Amino acid sequence: MHSAKWFLITFALFEAMPSSVAARLPDDLQRQIREYRTAHEKDIVQEFERLLSLPNRATETSDIEHNAEFIQTMLERRGVAVRMLRVPGAQPVVLGELHTPGASRTIGIYAHYDGQPVDPAQWRSPPFDPVMRDANGKDIDWEAAARLDPLWRVYARSASDDKAPIEATMAALDALRAANAPVSVNVKFMFEGEEEAGSTHLAQILNQNPDALDADIWLLCDGPVHQSRRMQVFFGARGETDLEITTYGPARPLHSGHYGNWAPNPIVLLTHLIDSMRDTNGKILIPGFYDDVRSLTTAETQALARTPAADEQLKQELAIPSPEGGGSLLAEQILKPALNVRGIQAGHVGVQAANVISTEAEGSIDFRLVPNQTPEKVRERVEDHIRHQGFFIVHDEPDISTRREHAQIVRLQWGSGYPPYRASMDNPAAQSIIRMIETATGGAVIQVVTLGGSVPMYLLEGKNHTPVIGVPIANHDNSQHAANENLRLQNMWDAIQMYAAIFAGF
Amino acid sequence: MHSAKWFLITFALFEAMPSSVAARLPDDLQRQIREYRTAHEKDIVQEFERLLSLPNRATETSDIEHNAEFIQTMLERRGVAVRMLRVPGAQPVVLGELHTPGASRTIGIYAHYDGQPVDPAQWRSPPFDPVMRDANGKDIDWEAAARLDPLWRVYARSASDDKAPIEATMAALDALRAANAPVSVNVKFMFEGEEEAGSTHLAQILNQNPDALDADIWLLCDGPVHQSRRMQVFFGARGETDLEITTYGPARPLHSGHYGNWAPNPIVLLTHLIDSMRDTNGKILIPGFYDDVRSLTTAETQALARTPAADEQLKQELAIPSPEGGGSLLAEQILKPALNVRGIQAGHVGVQAANVISTEAEGSIDFRLVPNQTPEKVRERVEDHIRHQGFFIVHDEPDISTRREHAQIVRLQWGSGYPPYRASMDNPAAQSIIRMIETATGGAVIQVVTLGGSVPMYLLEGKNHTPVIGVPIANHDNSQHAANENLRLQNMWDAIQMYAAIFAGF
Repeated sequence: MHSAKWFLITFALFEAMPSSVAARLPDDLQRQIREYRTAHEKDIVQEFERLLSLPNRATETSDIEHNAEFIQTMLERRGVAVRMLRVPGAQPVVLGELHTPGASRTIGIYAHYDGQPVDPAQWRSPPFDPVMRDANGKDIDWEAAARLDPLWRVYARSASDDKAPIEATMAALDALRAANAPVSVNVKFMFEGEEEAGSTHLAQILNQNPDALDADIWLLCDGPVHQSRRMQVFFGARGETDLEITTYGPARPLHSGHYGNWAPNPIVLLTHLIDSMRDTNGKILIPGFYDDVRSLTTAETQALARTPAADEQLKQELAIPSPEGGGSLLAEQILKPALNVRGIQAGHVGVQAANVISTEAEGSIDFRLVPNQTPEKVRERVEDHIRHQGFFIVHDEPDISTRREHAQIVRLQWGSGYPPYRASMDNPAAQSIIRMIETATGGAVIQVVTLGGSVPMYLLEGKNHTPVIGVPIANHDNSQHAANENLRLQNMWDAIQMYAAIFAGF
Repeated sequence: MHSAKWFLITFALFEAMPSSVAARLPDDLQRQIREYRTAHEKDIVQEFERLLSLPNRATETSDIEHNAEFIQTMLERRGVAVRMLRVPGAQPVVLGELHTPGASRTIGIYAHYDGQPVDPAQWRSPPFDPVMRDANGKDIDWEAAARLDPLWRVYARSASDDKAPIEATMAALDALRAANAPVSVNVKFMFEGEEEAGSTHLAQILNQNPDALDADIWLLCDGPVHQSRRMQVFFGARGETDLEITTYGPARPLHSGHYGNWAPNPIVLLTHLIDSMRDTNGKILIPGFYDDVRSLTTAETQALARTPAADEQLKQELAIPSPEGGGSLLAEQILKPALNVRGIQAGHVGVQAANVISTEAEGSIDFRLVPNQTPEKVRERVEDHIRHQGFFIVHDEPDISTRREHAQIVRLQWGSGYPPYRASMDNPAAQSIIRMIETATGGAVIQVVTLGGSVPMYLLEGKNHTPVIGVPIANHDNSQHAANENLRLQNMWDAIQMYAAIFAGF
């Protein structure tokens, strides 16, 4: 069924393609890619684990550089010309360009090679020492195994977010070459090194290298597939801006008995402030916060209605009997802005708890934005709100005389921000990519209005308004951003089939 | 002036004393004690530092035992008979008894040798590696110094809380012996090893050894002198009970973009719960919390009016332009119950912050109680309140099926508790002790209704309703319970004068 459907839909495309590709039936190609992968899966995992063993915290410059060099070599080994795009103080963008003789169209592949911070104490094994485990979490000596079970998972920071697409695209090129199936388009690989730091310099790098963005469509390869394990393509992403909040108590720690309910408690100031900003149901209480949220288009409303809800499964899996949102589905909730408290560190708890009034308390928040909100406007509204709560706002560490002068001082440190993005859902290039994915992975692709997470789609759109769609490959249960991040092998295998189909068929 | 006053007031007491003491003028004795101390101050500091170098976290059994043995040796070297009072699973109470031939009265000295938990990362030097520093915080090689500046401080865990009185009483005995001035009373030394853990077994130990409590008055030697650096005696202490609160989110950490404002955020549940329990002004919002608070007696009201307020100085020193309590003085505020948030640990902040919804959040609270509140009744009211906030209360780690079943689960872990205590302010034995302290330290003693902190006065009172007064010696700015705890040498010297006067003159 899928191949027949594929044939009808992509018939028009075939006419414009080199004859060697058009002559090959998609089913044949898919089989050949699968055979190549089956024969080489240990090589693929080996290269993937070498990539994962390179520490890639976004904040560690020299670590990041080793990743960039390793990826450069990966690309060059496949005949891809590489340029390192740099600006001072930034991690390089590794830009790979595969020129296909005779091809007039260009497809852009975006992924990022930096990772979220790690707290090794919370990991079962060191985050940069990849481990294979079976579905029950048992360690597997995969190199000694006769074959790799597709339900096994590789555990390491960035196994899913976002080194998997780097490995999968490279393996797809290898598989096409082995199948003697030529690539049909020019392919541009843009591998960023600062995504988890908020893509701080990407705009600047792209401004200095405007040709880097030239493409007919960009595939942003980040994020998870649907919770049902079906492939999904997303047409937008929430924006993001994050905020570190520090409140202040007495200049030195005080005994809570001798000074308790006289010396201001900075933790209480912080909890009170956070509590003024959102309720326990996810609703943001900051005045005007929702003012710029635009309503859905008809296509978006229809897509939302077609999106299968995995809510009941997720509620079981995640032990969430009563989600935030008062009955709305997850897919509806991520169409709204969000305020997430990422952490509070203040004083001590448990056996370390001491009867002390702390000198300060620190909280960390990330805001998710939707069209037409902007990070700038959100920041303004948040600061207005905090000021109206009676706080004196500073942006640097307040000195003792400032602390003597002002009650309720709060220090606000804003991280970099992303605006939200939404592509038009009926873009023809996007729709043809979707048909190819359906052929390659043997199932209907879910078309999602927006990803809940934040990825720099708005930057890839560029001045030419190139369509950008998100094509995630990671399993949804990958512990992305947290400890024990992992990639399920089947997701890597599906991704290789998919990229090969796109590179050969676009 | 002070010696003349002392002479008049203590005249009655002198008649009952052995002639060798009565024959000695208090001024002479004070001078001799001072001369002894000046000649031996390095020996005193040396012994003190050896005591401080023994780790004494209340939770580390074997460490605590070394402290008890060391203190036993300290007592026995001074001819004090020692019994180790033990019950299974408890740190021993070191009970020293100095029998004075012909003495009919007994004075009890209580202190504790265990300490609060330490977080070495926050200390300038390891907490069990005592360091001398000058008033500017500069490290001092005191052993090489010609003499010790009384403004220098010894930095170590328990330097002030509460090993200082142990050293000072021993040095006072040495000084009396050197001055050939006999001790006039029986002295009982009770050094506890579980005070910072809430005196968990003290009641049981005292029940099994009821004679240990026999005394005419107990001096509870803990806490700080007045912020003006004048000596103070306190007639009561706030009670205490502490609570660890854990709230729960999804069963595994989730990406805050993909699940933010659908998956419940446990940090928000915690901040919301804390915020429902008290306001930023120190007022407790739990229904019925103040019901059992009794009004002040006339003597207490008068003493409160006479207590010098150091509030303006403290506001400068601590950078607190606007204390909690809406204008009440510190001395008034500690007559009320308090809710202090000791800490929150949840997720991560700063460079470690990740865009994650955490699986749980932990907060730690200590409640301070005043007469006639009891820990039991407070716990009941707190749990009622939390239940009314919509939480499902558990006391153990909830399993996954419990988490699937109940929204808003909270785990409550109560620590041990102390009831509050207040002695009658016009007790004659207490008043005569106060006169002796005034002579020894050359200044009027401030009589304080209650200590803000919690000390086990209620246990020392026993069945005989023996009066218990608090006689603190530590500097108020000692960073008690926190990092860089310290004792100012002048406070140690004053304490030695004071104890010598009491031992020779009671």
